[in-house]
Formats: sequence, structure tokens, C-alpha cells
Amino acid sequence: MTIKKVLIANRGEIAVRIARACQELGVKAVAIYSEADRYSLHVKKADEAHCISEDPLTGYLNPHHIVNLAVETGCDALHPGYGFLSENATLAAVCKERGIRFIGPSAEVIESMGDKTHARQTAVNAGVPVTPGSEGNLEDVEDAVKQAESIGYPVMLKATSGGGGRGIRRCDDEESLRQNYKRVISEASKAFGSADVFLEKCIVNPRHIEVQVLADSFGNAIHLYERDCSIQRRNQKLIELAPSPQLSDEQREYIGDLAVRVAKETGYENAGTVEFLLDDKDDFYFMEMNTRVQVEHTISEQITGVDIVKEQIRIAGGAKLRFAQEDISYRGYAAQFRINAEDPKNNFLPSFGQITRYYSPGGPGVRTDAAIYTGYEIPPYYDSMCAKLIVSAMDWDELLERSQRALKDMGIYGIKTTIPYYLEILSHPEFRAASFNTGFVEGHPELINYSIKKRPESFAAAIAAAIAAQAGI
Amino acid sequence: MTIKKVLIANRGEIAVRIARACQELGVKAVAIYSEADRYSLHVKKADEAHCISEDPLTGYLNPHHIVNLAVETGCDALHPGYGFLSENATLAAVCKERGIRFIGPSAEVIESMGDKTHARQTAVNAGVPVTPGSEGNLEDVEDAVKQAESIGYPVMLKATSGGGGRGIRRCDDEESLRQNYKRVISEASKAFGSADVFLEKCIVNPRHIEVQVLADSFGNAIHLYERDCSIQRRNQKLIELAPSPQLSDEQREYIGDLAVRVAKETGYENAGTVEFLLDDKDDFYFMEMNTRVQVEHTISEQITGVDIVKEQIRIAGGAKLRFAQEDISYRGYAAQFRINAEDPKNNFLPSFGQITRYYSPGGPGVRTDAAIYTGYEIPPYYDSMCAKLIVSAMDWDELLERSQRALKDMGIYGIKTTIPYYLEILSHPEFRAASFNTGFVEGHPELINYSIKKRPESFAAAIAAAIAAQAGI
Repeated sequence: MTIKKVLIANRGEIAVRIARACQELGVKAVAIYSEADRYSLHVKKADEAHCISEDPLTGYLNPHHIVNLAVETGCDALHPGYGFLSENATLAAVCKERGIRFIGPSAEVIESMGDKTHARQTAVNAGVPVTPGSEGNLEDVEDAVKQAESIGYPVMLKATSGGGGRGIRRCDDEESLRQNYKRVISEASKAFGSADVFLEKCIVNPRHIEVQVLADSFGNAIHLYERDCSIQRRNQKLIELAPSPQLSDEQREYIGDLAVRVAKETGYENAGTVEFLLDDKDDFYFMEMNTRVQVEHTISEQITGVDIVKEQIRIAGGAKLRFAQEDISYRGYAAQFRINAEDPKNNFLPSFGQITRYYSPGGPGVRTDAAIYTGYEIPPYYDSMCAKLIVSAMDWDELLERSQRALKDMGIYGIKTTIPYYLEILSHPEFRAASFNTGFVEGHPELINYSIKKRPESFAAAIAAAIAAQAGI
Repeated sequence: MTIKKVLIANRGEIAVRIARACQELGVKAVAIYSEADRYSLHVKKADEAHCISEDPLTGYLNPHHIVNLAVETGCDALHPGYGFLSENATLAAVCKERGIRFIGPSAEVIESMGDKTHARQTAVNAGVPVTPGSEGNLEDVEDAVKQAESIGYPVMLKATSGGGGRGIRRCDDEESLRQNYKRVISEASKAFGSADVFLEKCIVNPRHIEVQVLADSFGNAIHLYERDCSIQRRNQKLIELAPSPQLSDEQREYIGDLAVRVAKETGYENAGTVEFLLDDKDDFYFMEMNTRVQVEHTISEQITGVDIVKEQIRIAGGAKLRFAQEDISYRGYAAQFRINAEDPKNNFLPSFGQITRYYSPGGPGVRTDAAIYTGYEIPPYYDSMCAKLIVSAMDWDELLERSQRALKDMGIYGIKTTIPYYLEILSHPEFRAASFNTGFVEGHPELINYSIKKRPESFAAAIAAAIAAQAGI
């Protein structure tokens, strides 16, 4: 390994994940933490740890401060994880300036793929289908009406310079398009200083299919097959599956090839994910590219055997990809359940607090990537995901059986979690039949009507009493 | 599933393992426990649990009592696990009499493979090589000397009816053979009522290679490749590997085929293991067949993806094997570390007591099959193995790296364990070069001279203080 010491510019389970990868590679790992994270697991699992801010957030969000620390602690590389600064081109640029290898693509690629119009154009250049839309900007409302008719309703009217969910309107017919046109023009002018708008076909309740890619600095790029992330709530993924149980092998090869073409077109380096929408006519459309490791990278690791985080570090160290596409195969199925500290019955309100007892599930096909331990107090400042349960199985039926078993096997006490909700999803006939799209969660509000089974408390209480007696407390 | 409810005639991690398999199959699991095991994990993980004895052992060792309970609780099958009554033909016979399906082979097969002479003859009939030896019993001491010369020293002089390590002597030359001859005749006459003795070649420091087989009641038998269990201390396996890093693919196919032949010859049904010795000339010799699930079945599951315990239950329920040999392939490498509650520095003396804190390791390629939890007190009456750490990786080098990481990741406090000793083995050049035999542990007594690294106690103490403060204790 050319890389000797990595600063992990993140917290929680992904920081633990990166520390484990470093340890396997014989690379030192340096953690950063806020005061609120002093007792977090990533602090414990790294070789050294530095408090980076008194307050919970500024430390994790200041690229200059973080890169300074990397230099001061003798690191030669930095892993951004996901979230926080992971898609911040400035962090990658500052790393480069200061001689720290950024474990991810170049600042230029992060920036260009972060711009949705540019990303869309990259896909078009690579011969990858994008959602049908107007060619360039609209001339006027009549042009909009004409183009919408040729695209077919519903359409999305979007401000060209828009972003963050603003300057976007769904239009179901000509009337709503005419109404919305003025509104979006007005919004876009005010918010982005540009009245340019364009149209895109609105794909209703698509399936979310994404492809994991790995690319090195020598122009080699491969894919590690796809993930199906259609089980989402308000655009937040809950359960991810690899491979997608909804694709044929032919579709699988096709979409893997598309993703590699996007990666090559953009000169991509390191791990990335190309996201597609799959409509009800089984047509794929490029959505966007995420220029970082994903929360759900784990399931691609499970089915292919490739340790994606270790490969990220190797690639950033200048290594050639160790695999050609033909070396990669997948076996069985894997599912990831995002264990969120939330109360599904209370509108998924965060349920932070102390984990009074944590039992990590075991046995065949069970992997956990968790940031919790018995006694840990989940701080209220961050994302509610506190653990990931990853289940692997030989086939789809076994995946369903084993996932139910593993979710019941997992014990998290003291807070509410999404575990009982996931058990409901696993029991649903549409899910079991592998027939679902991104409308599944919204379409089944009844799934939160589970009754909470009382565990045999006598046993737990007896254990607690026994512990207390023996510990003399 | 024809089977609806299984009595688990065991305790500890294997009872937990069986309960998990039952749960995945939608089969109810009934646990038994002694008073000493009231707070053991297998009690918690089963659907119901019954105290079977006041004292620690008699309950687990009484086949009639156990089968009675199976009948009373409405079970239709019984899983014996390993150890205890798992190779007791009476248990299988009583199950049959009482209409309970025994999850294992028939009483007849258990009995015949438990008789080493008969097992040896079965192997010969199947055309499987056995250790060179005298044909039948020896006539007199001159016959012994003559035959020993043709076999080649060292030889083992064995009482034909012997067992349990008695009536066996290693003879390194003619002189020791002549001396031992009278002694063994005398011992055998007294202990077994028979003066019959025979000779077998003594294979010094062989490698221990065993093959996992699965067979159904329709005459189908397959293997799930081999395990290398050469890392042993006093005939107790410590670390097991699958596949063996010491075999070529050609040897692998050859030995798999031999094992299937033994299983077919004996009319085997259910999961079993055919054990071989591999000498320094790369010749394999049949040693014995274990007619039960092995402690180390886990690593065969990891490399093939087959859930052996679920297949056991399916087969006992009358199902045909779901796989032909050509459906089985292996991927990567797996290692199992038996985490024993022992102090390696104190002659591996058992170190029972309370687990004050247990942290289950996580991340890619890590599986735990454990019988412990934070606060659990390991009772002093049973085997010292309290957990199994199973590590999977893409190749041998990654297996070494990841095993070191996972062993360090695992946290068991309050007792001594074999974890630091395994880290020493993992660092040894012979082990890393995949060049070792059953003499490895004895040949490297220096491996217990590790220094115990003090963990950063400040962190642990701070956490403990934080927990105590928050819990108001």
C-alpha cells in the first residue's frame, strides 16, 4: 500500500466501516469527532482520534479545518464517507492542494456530476438513455404545450438552474402546465437569476435501480452489478436489495454496461454509483451519478465478495483495478435494512437516547455494520440511522426467511427503531413477490399498524437482576 | 416442511444455531436446559424452553428423558447437535420407536460408523484408502515384527476391541514393538476381554482434512468440499479453514469423491463428515466418519452458501436433496476461530465467569455464532467454547488480514479467551504460508509468549462511568 495513514472525515457506522478497511490493509486510521461524539464507536475503532469541534456539526463540515488536521497528523489520504462533505468538490480540491490523496474522484468530476444538466449531457454523450424531455430550454408557453404533448403527460417543468427541490412542478395536463409555467418562470428568476426552464417526462412510481462501479486512474472501469432501492420513504431508502429481484439477467447485463459507459465518459476514478429509474414498460433512464461510497455498498460486497472500501483505498493509492469485468460474478441475494432510531408509529419521529441493551444478531448470512453498543447514547444531532443489518442468502425465498429471522434476532432496547416496520414489509405479498416500486411505502400506510409484541420480560428482567447482583450494583 | 416442531437436545451456541435454522424454516423450536443454563442464550432464542434437570449434566445425557419431553411438547423431530448424545445410537433408536424424526442418520449407521474397525472396512469396501496395516489380527510377536517391517515404522499397535485411547501404543522400532506387544496383549485382555491386536501405520504429524457430505433418503449424496482442521491442540481443533489452503483443485475433487463414496457405501442419510489424514507424501487415508453436524460446519456454509442445518432438517423431513453435485461451487476462503474461555498462558485452563461486556464484531466477512451476551455468566460445567468467530474473504491473503481485524474487533471482557493466542498463530510465517500440520501447535510453544496489550482503558472507563451516571446506578 502506498497509503499509510487515512483521515476519516466522517462519523457513525461509515467511519467504523472505513477504520475496519484500513486495519485490514495495515493502514493507520485517524478519526475526528465532535464533543457530542466523544463516546461514539468510530472514536474507539480508529488508531487515533481528534476532537474537531465543540459543537456537533461545524467540525464535520469544514473542509479546510479537516484537511489541516490530516496534514498535522501525518495522514497521506482522506476518506470522506457519505453525507457531510463527501460530494463537496472543495474538499477534494483542498486535499489535492495540500498533498493529501482524496479517496474518491477528482474535484472536477464531483462538480460536473453534481450539476444535473451536465450529468444528463454526459449520459447522452455516452449513449445512455435519459428521461425524454425538451431539447434545451423552452421558448414560451406554447412551445411548452407543444413539447409536452410530444413527450406525454405527466411532465416535470424544471428551472434549468434549479436545485434542491425548488423551481420544479409536476404538470398532469395542459391546464396545469399553463398555470405552472408562469409560476416556475417567476420562481426561477427570483431564486436563481435565470428564467430558463425545460421539460422532462415525469415517471410515476418508477423502480430505483442503481449500479455500483469501480474505476481506476488507468481508464479501467467495471461494475459490481445493481441494487434495487425502490423501498423508500420520502426519498429516503429503507431497504436495499442486490441484485434486483425485478430484473432479468439480460437487463442486468444491459444496465451494468450503461453504468460503465457513464463512468468512462466522465473519466471517473474510484467507487461511484450510477442511478437509473425503471418505468413500468421496463425502460431504464439515467437519473444521476453519486460520486462517493453509498450507504448500501454493503450488499454489493455481499453478492460479489469485493470489499469496496478497501478497493477505494487501493485505487486512491494509485493501484490498478485488480479485477476485470469477467472476474466479477454474483452469488445469491443480499438485503440491507437501515435500522433507524425512529418511531414508525409516530410519523417516523427520531427516537434518540440511550441504548440500554444491544444484542447483535448472528448465525449464517448475517452481517452488521453498526455504530451502537450497550450503553451508547445516540446524540440527537445527526442522522437517525444507527445500524445496518445486512442479510445474505442463496435465493430470494431464503432471503425473506432469513431477513425475518435476523430482524427478530437483533435486539435494540431503550429506543424505538424501524425493525418492526421492516417485518411488516417482509410479510407483504407484493414485497414477497418481488413486485414493488418507489410508491410501495406511500401506497401501504397500513404497514405501520403492527402491534408491538411484548417480549418475555421475565427473562430479560431476570438477567438484569442477575447482572446487577453479580456486579454488586 | 413436513416437520413442524423440533426439540433441540443440546445447549450453547449449537442450540442457538439450530433455533435460528428452525425459525427460518417456520418450524417451532423447543429448548431444554439445566438449572445452570437457565439464563443461557439458547433458552432465549427458542420458542419454548423446559428445564430438564436440576444438576448440570444428567438432563442433557438421558435419551429417554429427552425423547419423553419431545413427545410431551408435541415435537415431531429432534436435533442432537454435536457432543452430548449426538453420536449415541440409543437416542436415534428411541426417537424412532416414539415416532420422533431424528435429525441425523439411522441408529444402525451411527453404530456401525462408531465402530472403528467397521468404519475402516466400509472405507475399504468403497475403494477408499485406509492407513496401511496388518490384515486382520496378528498371530504372534514375530508376525508383528514381520508385518511392521513391511508397513514401515513408526507403527501403532492397537487392541482390536480397544477404544477411548486405551490399548494403543506407538512403536518406533522393532525393540519398542517387542516390548509393547506383551503390554498391549495384557491390557487388552484385561480391559476388553480379548487379546486380539493389530497394527496400523503411524502417520506422524499429518494434516487433518475432512469433507462435509449431505445425503438424502433417496440414495443421493453430495459433498460441500473440505475443511482443513490441522490447527489442533491435544486433538482439540482450534482454527478450521475451508477450503484447505494446502490442497490443489485436483486433490480437492479427489477427496470429495472419496467422501461421497464412503457415504454411499454406508447408506448414509443427513449431514456427516468424512475425516482423512494427509501425510507428507500427499497421500490421503480415511480416518473416521462423524455422523452429526460438526462444530466447524459454518465454514462450509460460508464458502458454498448452503445452510447445512436447514438442509439437515429438510432431509429428516423426507425431502430430496435440493442440489446435485454440479450445483455446488465454492467461493473464497473461510476460517473459524473457536473462542474458548481459557487462559492460554496458564496451560489453557478454563476461565469461566461473568462476561462483563461483550462486543460482537461486524463489517464485511464477519459472522459470529456465539452463546454469550453482556452479563452472561459462563457456567463451569460445560465445554469452554463460548463463541465461534467465522471470517470469510475473497482469497487467502484477505482471510489473514480480515481475521486479524475481526479478532481485534471482538470484545469479550471479564474472562480470558484464546483470542490473543489466535492472533499469534495468524502472525506466524508457517501459518501465513499455508504450510502446517497437526504438529503446528505443539511445535510452537513460544506462541503463548504474547504480551497482553493494555487497551486504552480511559475510553472504556469513561463509557462505563457514562452508563452508570445515565442509568442512575
